[in-house]
Amino acid sequence: MASPLTLNDDRLLPPDPGTRGIARRIYATTRELPIISPHGHVPPRWIALDEHFGNPARLLITPDHYINRVLHANGVELSELGVGRGEEMTEADNRRAFRLLCEHWTDLNGTAMRYWLTDQLVGIFGVRVRPAAETADAIYDTIAARLDEPGFRPRRLMDAFRIRFLATTDDPCDDLGMHAEIAADEEFSARHRVVPTFRPDRYLEPARPDWNELVDALGGAAGVDVGTLDGYTRAMAERRRYFKEHGAVSSDHSHADLGTLILPADEAARLYDRARRGLATADEALALRRHLFTDQARMACEDGLVMTVHPAVARNHDADALARYGADVGGDIPLALEATRALGPLLNAYGNHPGLHLVLFTLDEDVYSREFAPLAAWYRSVHLGVPWWFVDAPESIMRFKRGVTEMAGFSRISGMVDDTRAFCSIPARHDMSRRLDAAHLADLVATHRLDEDEAIEQAGALVVDNQVRIFKLDR
Amino acid sequence: MASPLTLNDDRLLPPDPGTRGIARRIYATTRELPIISPHGHVPPRWIALDEHFGNPARLLITPDHYINRVLHANGVELSELGVGRGEEMTEADNRRAFRLLCEHWTDLNGTAMRYWLTDQLVGIFGVRVRPAAETADAIYDTIAARLDEPGFRPRRLMDAFRIRFLATTDDPCDDLGMHAEIAADEEFSARHRVVPTFRPDRYLEPARPDWNELVDALGGAAGVDVGTLDGYTRAMAERRRYFKEHGAVSSDHSHADLGTLILPADEAARLYDRARRGLATADEALALRRHLFTDQARMACEDGLVMTVHPAVARNHDADALARYGADVGGDIPLALEATRALGPLLNAYGNHPGLHLVLFTLDEDVYSREFAPLAAWYRSVHLGVPWWFVDAPESIMRFKRGVTEMAGFSRISGMVDDTRAFCSIPARHDMSRRLDAAHLADLVATHRLDEDEAIEQAGALVVDNQVRIFKLDR
Amino acid sequence: MASPLTLNDDRLLPPDPGTRGIARRIYATTRELPIISPHGHVPPRWIALDEHFGNPARLLITPDHYINRVLHANGVELSELGVGRGEEMTEADNRRAFRLLCEHWTDLNGTAMRYWLTDQLVGIFGVRVRPAAETADAIYDTIAARLDEPGFRPRRLMDAFRIRFLATTDDPCDDLGMHAEIAADEEFSARHRVVPTFRPDRYLEPARPDWNELVDALGGAAGVDVGTLDGYTRAMAERRRYFKEHGAVSSDHSHADLGTLILPADEAARLYDRARRGLATADEALALRRHLFTDQARMACEDGLVMTVHPAVARNHDADALARYGADVGGDIPLALEATRALGPLLNAYGNHPGLHLVLFTLDEDVYSREFAPLAAWYRSVHLGVPWWFVDAPESIMRFKRGVTEMAGFSRISGMVDDTRAFCSIPARHDMSRRLDAAHLADLVATHRLDEDEAIEQAGALVVDNQVRIFKLDR
Repeated sequence: MASPLTLNDDRLLPPDPGTRGIARRIYATTRELPIISPHGHVPPRWIALDEHFGNPARLLITPDHYINRVLHANGVELSELGVGRGEEMTEADNRRAFRLLCEHWTDLNGTAMRYWLTDQLVGIFGVRVRPAAETADAIYDTIAARLDEPGFRPRRLMDAFRIRFLATTDDPCDDLGMHAEIAADEEFSARHRVVPTFRPDRYLEPARPDWNELVDALGGAAGVDVGTLDGYTRAMAERRRYFKEHGAVSSDHSHADLGTLILPADEAARLYDRARRGLATADEALALRRHLFTDQARMACEDGLVMTVHPAVARNHDADALARYGADVGGDIPLALEATRALGPLLNAYGNHPGLHLVLFTLDEDVYSREFAPLAAWYRSVHLGVPWWFVDAPESIMRFKRGVTEMAGFSRISGMVDDTRAFCSIPARHDMSRRLDAAHLADLVATHRLDEDEAIEQAGALVVDNQVRIFKLDR
Repeated sequence: MASPLTLNDDRLLPPDPGTRGIARRIYATTRELPIISPHGHVPPRWIALDEHFGNPARLLITPDHYINRVLHANGVELSELGVGRGEEMTEADNRRAFRLLCEHWTDLNGTAMRYWLTDQLVGIFGVRVRPAAETADAIYDTIAARLDEPGFRPRRLMDAFRIRFLATTDDPCDDLGMHAEIAADEEFSARHRVVPTFRPDRYLEPARPDWNELVDALGGAAGVDVGTLDGYTRAMAERRRYFKEHGAVSSDHSHADLGTLILPADEAARLYDRARRGLATADEALALRRHLFTDQARMACEDGLVMTVHPAVARNHDADALARYGADVGGDIPLALEATRALGPLLNAYGNHPGLHLVLFTLDEDVYSREFAPLAAWYRSVHLGVPWWFVDAPESIMRFKRGVTEMAGFSRISGMVDDTRAFCSIPARHDMSRRLDAAHLADLVATHRLDEDEAIEQAGALVVDNQVRIFKLDR
Repeated sequence: MASPLTLNDDRLLPPDPGTRGIARRIYATTRELPIISPHGHVPPRWIALDEHFGNPARLLITPDHYINRVLHANGVELSELGVGRGEEMTEADNRRAFRLLCEHWTDLNGTAMRYWLTDQLVGIFGVRVRPAAETADAIYDTIAARLDEPGFRPRRLMDAFRIRFLATTDDPCDDLGMHAEIAADEEFSARHRVVPTFRPDRYLEPARPDWNELVDALGGAAGVDVGTLDGYTRAMAERRRYFKEHGAVSSDHSHADLGTLILPADEAARLYDRARRGLATADEALALRRHLFTDQARMACEDGLVMTVHPAVARNHDADALARYGADVGGDIPLALEATRALGPLLNAYGNHPGLHLVLFTLDEDVYSREFAPLAAWYRSVHLGVPWWFVDAPESIMRFKRGVTEMAGFSRISGMVDDTRAFCSIPARHDMSRRLDAAHLADLVATHRLDEDEAIEQAGALVVDNQVRIFKLDR
């Protein structure tokens, strides 16, 4: 007989009965609050076209690189999960992909992926049996049936999930047509703000082999001649303006390090020219990238777009997987981060500028108390993004909270940033975050560092007020 | 109606009732022990002249860079808090500064600053309402009235706080007149040992623009010609002797890294000569600094002054704040630390010398178990300083205890080092430390790693015996 | 009257009563399971000759560098503990060494060494009084009497300890005669598999002054001309084959960094030639070492030996202790570790090869969530070794579990690896590990991240299944 799969109402709350009681009371005040998701990777097309999610594998497995990577480590081929195969996956293929996940269910013991999946399986799809080889087909059928219900289209789920604000991530050359389509539905948009995010990374990396073409495309999209750095800068500003006009509140940035630099204008122009002509050395390309990244902060002071920064990952570490499946399939590995010296030039120029909000993320936990909390406890522009990617799991999140709050306080920390393309996991992730907020605050109350009424007010602020203030959602 | 502000007697003790019971019994044996503060920044003048503390803002806000920096991050100008304004602050200005703190009270939720402030407000000043805009004036009045009482002068507070030993931090050229004045009061000095600490950093940094003048001043203070490295070394030794004669037990050091180096005598002399003539390159200046710092360890083997070392902070990271308010106002950010290789030359020369006590501090928590505990669990000179500055808060302190004790044991760890200039926070900080000692030890007892009688003995040793032994206070 | 020394049956289980109850039930299912020790330093001679352990000091102190180093830090000379003195230690000397340990018992408060010693003293030797100066002789007598009992020879203890698999660590030139002797006792070998481990470090370090002689010896042992790199490679492969033939399942590696590199064949041959002729520069020697280390992975893909990798320790940091007592007496200090970039070349070549199992260890805890868990959650060859050496203590082990499991799951983590030469501590170490597994899993159950039946199954898998699978013990 299959084992039951359940969701306990007290999950993630502290085991000590007294502290758990406090945590329950705090969590009760935030669990029904709307979701504000200021950074993520949901394709706007899903919402614009209100697309059917297809099938359980395509919804829960194929696009989720968290799950892909753990299954890969445990011997599954990405192609078996549908990666890189798109429409060629048959019903049998999808069932098989789903069965592979179920067969590897115990390999997910103790992971965040299992926590989110359980929340979705039980909470959204009404699954009641534990995934395993022998239950895989039945679970697949249960989910598939739900996906055919009208309530399981993206727009209706946005309602059900109480997602009030959702930012996607978009290329600077994107015409944002999907966003325009969403905005055109005034009835829907009144309840749900779906906005683009300006993600210019590729255009800031002169060392990329395709950089010149990208810059040309940028110039084309902006209608600006990018033959000189001045032109390039005007094109960037124009595309930022276009994004802002379409609702964007932030730009998102991810480079291999946090290095910043403000080159003298003529030196910057010279390096740009050399890079455009394919002559830049590796050092020059790096200096130019740091300069261009820092220049985004200058523009942010002017146009007010918030900057989220996700640095220090070695992308596509597994060259063979890159060759076979392309980028972003899971073979990324974090790197050590240095922020104090790297951010010096940027912060000295713009660190206390009222127009700039910088939200910093890290995958290097040592940085929490060593650099991030002290930076956020001095510079007015610096805010701390909550744990991201490899560290967005319960224990890691608690380490983050305990690592930065004592110096920086809660006011310098963003609310939940889910950073996900797994649409149905969004409520599970935000709920997890609220439970952990409650657990952390309950511990402060139980050890008499905060009164319970203060903790309750703080919990609400983390879910709503901090998001609105830090991401400037009231403008 | 204003919310009450209270101090719970169980604050910081573990929530689990069984463990809390053990912790209470341990803490009960240490809470009334005298305070031994072997390193801090209280101006000796306050005690020598037994000065009135002025007003609540000047006491609690203006000189406290922990509070300044968090308020700065949250939009307050340092000048509004009195920084750099001294006597020009009017009563209205001070009230306004105090109100700013109260208005930002919730920005301090979860921080160590709030914990210490609450302890002071309730425990020392009898404040009973939570700080907020509407209670600010009343709280100001309550504190101001107390400050006018004769019991609130520094010397009477030293009695009330049970501070038995207090080390200040002093420039090598200081004539230590204030300390002489304190020592001259035999009745006071019988109950309170107030001693200077030798802080030669600036004189060891040949890259400083003012280094030559500083060295000249050092020579003048010592009555020694500093034209050669030999002279400089004799001047240093002479000033160390002078400090020791005035009661000093330690020297304090803080450079951007922990690098040590013993140059061949002639090479050191050559670099000194070049540095004095303004010809030293950056590399030469760095090598000379490392050599001169290491030479302090050699002298310490001879004269027995304990060395406390607080490395790896990027000082005055915010150049604009430095220009407007000067150094040490808060714009300092920690750096990653490497100790194993950096300390090699020093430890190979003096690491097991019976005369040397080296007390190492770090702001890079990764170093706790990776380098500090192993170093202290081998070299006889190496002792571990408790968490300092950005990490001297409850969660961080528990991480430190759990990170180093398992390898190094308690005997290699200093007792509480408050490192503060916030005079009235000293009892709160030491009390916090004793509560956390109790929490840590209670957990060891509750998990049967230590018997309760052993834990009680260990708790007392951390407060008194370790301090006396490591800082050589019995000599 | 001497204080009692006891072993509480609930030691290391979580204090919260509800969670403790769960942990007890989990632990009850693993406490009696056999010990599988896939990497350690027990001399095979002890088992081959079934030697008497000599005396309490020689058993518990002299060879244990954990204890030596803490006593050294607290002022004891290594020679007083018998280090480097061998047979010259008299009965009085051994008693004195043992008394030194007892006198320093409180210096071990809170350390893992004390935990293991208590477990051995009470659990194996029936000691019932706390070690101290006045109880030292009686405890010595109690242990000495036990050592004379026939049940206290290594082979009978292997039975009593339920050690089913034990790997030693051996030089590539070793003839493995002791292992042959053990294997020859078929009755014993049916119950206990004792196997060698191939440890080629010294032969991979062209910068060593004795490298040429070592390589010559390797060639001699293999019967292969090592005049060229090809010959050297054949000699290595031959010695690996010889070890495998004698039961080895793994090779063990420890260099100062994790750097890997695959040089073009002719460049590698050229560097080998230069190194053999004593002409290699430091950079060349480093490149060659990284190439040769990476080549062990290539061979592992072919012959299937598991690679355990223990990187980043500054060996013999204390040059004086090295000169007086030789290597491996305790003066080793960890270094920061970088894995993502360092392992790139190796993982790109062999990272998903079905023949390769790489078990990575670290002393730099920051690496847990930053690099190790992500690597193990992608590459099929990468498995995570449990905390090792300075971090193999309860709090550190819990940090490891909480740091890697959320991303990598339990399936990528080895079971207990004791890495010890302290024979009698092996059961204490494995029991500690099982208790901490139970504590960790109980917390997952208490916070509803795992069901209790799943936790129980997982606990058993960590002790047996993961070991068998990761170290290929079923082949």
